[in-house]
Amino acid sequence: MTPSPDNLSRPKGPSRRAFVLGAAVAAATGGAAVGVWNAFRRTDPPQPGVAMNPRLFSFVGGTGGAWSVIGMKAVVGDALPTVAALDIVNGPAAEPPGGWLLRGVTSNERYATRAEKTQLVAKQAALGRPEATHAALIPIRKSAAWWALTQDERRAVFEDQSRHTHVGLKYLPAVARRLHHCRDLDRPEPFDFLTLFDYTAADAAAFEDLVAALRATAEWKYVDREVDIRLVRG
Amino acid sequence: MTPSPDNLSRPKGPSRRAFVLGAAVAAATGGAAVGVWNAFRRTDPPQPGVAMNPRLFSFVGGTGGAWSVIGMKAVVGDALPTVAALDIVNGPAAEPPGGWLLRGVTSNERYATRAEKTQLVAKQAALGRPEATHAALIPIRKSAAWWALTQDERRAVFEDQSRHTHVGLKYLPAVARRLHHCRDLDRPEPFDFLTLFDYTAADAAAFEDLVAALRATAEWKYVDREVDIRLVRG
Repeated sequence: MTPSPDNLSRPKGPSRRAFVLGAAVAAATGGAAVGVWNAFRRTDPPQPGVAMNPRLFSFVGGTGGAWSVIGMKAVVGDALPTVAALDIVNGPAAEPPGGWLLRGVTSNERYATRAEKTQLVAKQAALGRPEATHAALIPIRKSAAWWALTQDERRAVFEDQSRHTHVGLKYLPAVARRLHHCRDLDRPEPFDFLTLFDYTAADAAAFEDLVAALRATAEWKYVDREVDIRLVRG
Repeated sequence: MTPSPDNLSRPKGPSRRAFVLGAAVAAATGGAAVGVWNAFRRTDPPQPGVAMNPRLFSFVGGTGGAWSVIGMKAVVGDALPTVAALDIVNGPAAEPPGGWLLRGVTSNERYATRAEKTQLVAKQAALGRPEATHAALIPIRKSAAWWALTQDERRAVFEDQSRHTHVGLKYLPAVARRLHHCRDLDRPEPFDFLTLFDYTAADAAAFEDLVAALRATAEWKYVDREVDIRLVRG
């Protein structure tokens, strides 16, 4: 968010904005101010004038956004509240009343070797192709046992045993993918990773094969929460 | 911070707290309210009732805190403003006027193998031994070239070429160490890592040998900003 001269010169600017935003939401929902405030408790609303990590993405599950939710399923562990739509924002966002907010940052890859990265870069497409009208947001949490593994042990499970990168390569460029990390943000998140995929209607069956293949791996034994959210544009 | 029933039930609680904090700082410093607000711009002040990552640490350089600053040196790149004291907080903190705030989270190790981890755990001490009256906070940023390397390439520089873990092992348990990661926080930080060390007065010379050895490695060619802050307790 770009700070305006106005909100930089008034010390009460962010407070006023949060209050006005809360009041507007309360008016729209008929909720009491206390309820509105509670909706902001897990993650504070965006603060004007506070610089954000440019790699931060917010996934806002609620009633509006560029994507319609056509299915939500808890694969492992607790579900997320059912919502009608998903908005994806490159930056901060407020948690909508009755919905949810998930946040993550893109970052350097943790496992790929140079040889694997070269293959990925040669084959992969970026998210957002106009014909990619289908998408999936798959939030995942891994167990304490996963995080207690050392780097060589995690790599061994991820690739030597599970062939994660090699399985994924088979579905490129049909399925585009972007990984967001949640574990080292300031605020605690309910998942460790948010993976966003998009693909054409014609590739929907291939996408099912991909997620089924990954869920059958040794790596997935360390997944202790997973929700599968399917989306169509508009 | 544990939310009190009072601040959860009043929607204006966080705003009021930020305002009161700002006013108190303004009174203490003689600064204008605008200046006080600006001091909070890079990182917003802690919000009551917002849960934080329990692995978040704040390093507050200012006029008070458990550690006195006895030396600050820019090793590579820009310096930090000189301050008299450092406070280390397991949680969020506000940036003090005229000082600085650095934040990072402890996380899983990125390079150590199981064999190396076993050696480290067998030898290392935790921070905070009563006799460890000396400390150093060394914030480091690595270059874009480092972050463009793949995992195998980073590991090769870190250990095969630079013997980072093996050099460090020689100074255990005399030098205790904790690494904080800054790169994947919500708010952008000026450094990628904050390393905190503590040691006894008798081990101060050994600590100089350790930092000199690391600065001579291939890994350090990727360090594009480093500040060395020396501390004594009280």
